Amino acid sequence: MKILFIGDVVGSPGRAMVDEYVKRLKKDYKPTLTVINGENAAAGKGINEKIYKGFLDAGAQAVTLGNHAWAKRDIFDFIDTAKWLVRPANYPEGTPGVGMVFVTINQIEIAVINLMGRTFLPANDCPFRKADELIAEAKKRTPYIFVDFHAEVTSEKIAMGWYLDGRVMAVVGTHTHVQTADERILPKGTAYISDVGMTGPYDGILGVEKEPVLHKFLTNLPVRFEVASGREQLSGVIIDVDDKSGQAKSIKRILINEDHPYIER
Amino acid sequence: MKILFIGDVVGSPGRAMVDEYVKRLKKDYKPTLTVINGENAAAGKGINEKIYKGFLDAGAQAVTLGNHAWAKRDIFDFIDTAKWLVRPANYPEGTPGVGMVFVTINQIEIAVINLMGRTFLPANDCPFRKADELIAEAKKRTPYIFVDFHAEVTSEKIAMGWYLDGRVMAVVGTHTHVQTADERILPKGTAYISDVGMTGPYDGILGVEKEPVLHKFLTNLPVRFEVASGREQLSGVIIDVDDKSGQAKSIKRILINEDHPYIER
Amino acid sequence: MKILFIGDVVGSPGRAMVDEYVKRLKKDYKPTLTVINGENAAAGKGINEKIYKGFLDAGAQAVTLGNHAWAKRDIFDFIDTAKWLVRPANYPEGTPGVGMVFVTINQIEIAVINLMGRTFLPANDCPFRKADELIAEAKKRTPYIFVDFHAEVTSEKIAMGWYLDGRVMAVVGTHTHVQTADERILPKGTAYISDVGMTGPYDGILGVEKEPVLHKFLTNLPVRFEVASGREQLSGVIIDVDDKSGQAKSIKRILINEDHPYIER
Amino acid sequence: MKILFIGDVVGSPGRAMVDEYVKRLKKDYKPTLTVINGENAAAGKGINEKIYKGFLDAGAQAVTLGNHAWAKRDIFDFIDTAKWLVRPANYPEGTPGVGMVFVTINQIEIAVINLMGRTFLPANDCPFRKADELIAEAKKRTPYIFVDFHAEVTSEKIAMGWYLDGRVMAVVGTHTHVQTADERILPKGTAYISDVGMTGPYDGILGVEKEPVLHKFLTNLPVRFEVASGREQLSGVIIDVDDKSGQAKSIKRILINEDHPYIER
Ligand SMILES: [Fe+2]
Ligand SMILES: [Fe+2]
Ligand SMILES: [Fe+2]
Ligand SMILES: [Fe+2]
Ligand SMILES: [Fe+2]
Ligand SMILES: [Fe+2]
Ligand SMILES: [Fe+2]
Ligand SMILES: [Fe+2]
Repeated sequence: MKILFIGDVVGSPGRAMVDEYVKRLKKDYKPTLTVINGENAAAGKGINEKIYKGFLDAGAQAVTLGNHAWAKRDIFDFIDTAKWLVRPANYPEGTPGVGMVFVTINQIEIAVINLMGRTFLPANDCPFRKADELIAEAKKRTPYIFVDFHAEVTSEKIAMGWYLDGRVMAVVGTHTHVQTADERILPKGTAYISDVGMTGPYDGILGVEKEPVLHKFLTNLPVRFEVASGREQLSGVIIDVDDKSGQAKSIKRILINEDHPYIER
Repeated sequence: MKILFIGDVVGSPGRAMVDEYVKRLKKDYKPTLTVINGENAAAGKGINEKIYKGFLDAGAQAVTLGNHAWAKRDIFDFIDTAKWLVRPANYPEGTPGVGMVFVTINQIEIAVINLMGRTFLPANDCPFRKADELIAEAKKRTPYIFVDFHAEVTSEKIAMGWYLDGRVMAVVGTHTHVQTADERILPKGTAYISDVGMTGPYDGILGVEKEPVLHKFLTNLPVRFEVASGREQLSGVIIDVDDKSGQAKSIKRILINEDHPYIER
Repeated sequence: MKILFIGDVVGSPGRAMVDEYVKRLKKDYKPTLTVINGENAAAGKGINEKIYKGFLDAGAQAVTLGNHAWAKRDIFDFIDTAKWLVRPANYPEGTPGVGMVFVTINQIEIAVINLMGRTFLPANDCPFRKADELIAEAKKRTPYIFVDFHAEVTSEKIAMGWYLDGRVMAVVGTHTHVQTADERILPKGTAYISDVGMTGPYDGILGVEKEPVLHKFLTNLPVRFEVASGREQLSGVIIDVDDKSGQAKSIKRILINEDHPYIER
Repeated sequence: MKILFIGDVVGSPGRAMVDEYVKRLKKDYKPTLTVINGENAAAGKGINEKIYKGFLDAGAQAVTLGNHAWAKRDIFDFIDTAKWLVRPANYPEGTPGVGMVFVTINQIEIAVINLMGRTFLPANDCPFRKADELIAEAKKRTPYIFVDFHAEVTSEKIAMGWYLDGRVMAVVGTHTHVQTADERILPKGTAYISDVGMTGPYDGILGVEKEPVLHKFLTNLPVRFEVASGREQLSGVIIDVDDKSGQAKSIKRILINEDHPYIER
């Protein structure tokens, strides 16, 4: 089985790239499961119901989130009815929404888990223990488990990769908005990448206009960030999993922008 | 002219990779300038004179550093006589060592600058203003300027890339120990990559054994990190610069490990 | 000479306390100089021109600020004409406003300096070096120098106290909104207190309603903070300085709330 | 009943102050319960068995800790047999030691709880939820509950005070090493102070020599901190609790140093 994952979609430029390329990627790679990280989909921070449904229409079966999940107040109105929306599972008990969903495709169930790191991020529950708990729960239903680990630092991400090696199909990192080149199959069969990278503006800084970010670094004064305009990119990974063992066979980075044009397969 | 840069060399496994591959890479690519980041070269943190000289012997003309520069007390004994050792330039005035060196190769001078980010790192002087100052100084002598920007977060690194675009040949990021896949030539001709990645153990976490790191994340108790053993990797970039304009023409990632074996060119 | 300093005034409850008590305190203590920290005066964050002028009317000769100085956009419109408004001096060069003002009272000049710490706060210029620079400048005109050091951690504040001991009349800390009980005269004659404390609501958390703050700590979800209502308090210090030597003779905490009612002297 | 609490004891100067004053304070105030925070007791960081026993000999019935609990490796050898040693309860499950002890005095049980904040401190379990859990457990045995909340920022400490108001006798803050002047009885009967302050050197920075701390702030270079020598101080609080209701009637700061000499009651 193949899994297509699209990294943090930022604003309308990111959504435009999803609309333009996800169907083509699905046609090319024929993934069993497609997951999109949508924490920045609404104007650079947060998500709303229309955008969430748009991602399902564009071909995703699940939408994961991150620290910016809560940025648009709308989220609290629809998260509990959005069946395929997954927020970081290790937010404390009582948090709206769920941290794991089961997607059924051709009678096969796939668990999609979202977790969040704690280094330089809010002090949620331990993501490692929460992973243990969710994996135990998921294993009762399916051997196919996919994890989007939304975290800042490379140490915590790689630690999660090793921690879950052999227990899940894949641990893909999100949040830094820069694709890393360390995709690999860990020794016990888990596909890993520290960060899938961002889908949205190609010429800003993490998806927003560069001038305010530079102004902030230079002055420490408050600025307003706007989603950048101009050229766009899409970042993703395609993971190939052995159906029998549930182990990953390969992980391949996808990066589409003017410097890396899309090539029909 | 070509520039070969090797990312954070960690401990003896990293030094072994330098010894094994730098000469071969130099033979293959014939770089005018070779620079190694050595902030983790001595037992995972810091550097000593012997290792520094070993890097010169292995083919480097300059050795850059980072936040771990000061970890081994030896540094204070030899930094002021080590002509090709470059510590982050934006440490405050009075800091031992220098933040820019001029390497002369075939009568051409190349300025090698090391700067350090401030987000989640010590509050040094502003790296952007320090860059302005050093570039102004360097431009009096040479159009060829190379920058190793040692920083944690992607926003600060990309901001520096845009800030220096067109003013230097290259801004290469170091410190996160994970190679990023965002290498590109910025519109005004500066080669950029968020992080070159690490040279050292392939199966640890940022170069150290994974068990103590996992123990730390799981318990918040103090642990002792040891450089990991086992398989190794080398991370670098090769940048091609137009001699006339001083603008970069290409930047290519180098990643050597069991999953990406070295292929003679 | 006596100096009256009022700690971070928060919103309208804080301003009401200033209006009610500063004139009475001035009548009682007859300070030569009165300074108010106004970084939270406008709705809990920032300041505007009307409030600034209100503080002068209420009896202040200078108004200091802090990290929240910039929260209301108005500040950029009036800071450059507000002669007695002092923002942290170690914001980088080019920042609007000034970090030191000279107040003339009975032909005596007093320098009022505002500095900001960097631990868990924006990476501004080094406050210690900036202090050296400003003190050197001030000493050309007057031996009477007063410092409001706006900082988070006790280590940085106490370090500043020792660093400036004997060179200024007083180093008073602000920012944590909790008055400390460590007021003292350091060995070389500088009055010191780690934090003067907050002037505003007595029953909230740092001046804002407690429910949203608790909600934030319990959920890590975004909340909107509102200035708290109900009982109020005023926090300040009165420092007695020897006119001849410029050394502080005493520092006394002022705390007015329902548990510590104001007692006419 | 009265409770005497002594704030973070730092190194041998702090232990000397405990030896000199705790017996006198006990004679004067006749506390039912005496608790000492010992996280810095061994050479400025951590504690060992000898020092722990020394605190019991000096008159403490319980010894609380904090983030530095684990600094001396000895702790792991004796914590599980040290009946009156209390480490922060919200370290994750499996952590050696306990976070609550019951002290029996004249057939009355008093629960002593240690909790740790998470802002700018390790990401442990939620201290608020852990407090709920421990209080529920304690209430089955006793109405008398005492909490040492070891935390960095004033917002988290005050939040805990309000959160536990009416449910425990007292919430006393530790960790910043500076005594605050905000001691009060909250509306529902809980005694509160943001920080009790430190017991140890009077002329250093948080208990250590000031020169290395200043060097660190000025250079960002590594330094070795040593417990300061010279004059000493003791910081504590004495809390008076109504035996019937379990509500606090008063909280009084104790500060003993050359500027505040001890006065026999
Ligand atoms: Fe994101
Ligand atoms: Fe994020
Ligand atoms: Fe490094
Ligand atoms: Fe580093
Ligand atoms: Fe404030
Ligand atoms: Fe502040
Ligand atoms: Fe402490
Ligand atoms: Fe502590």
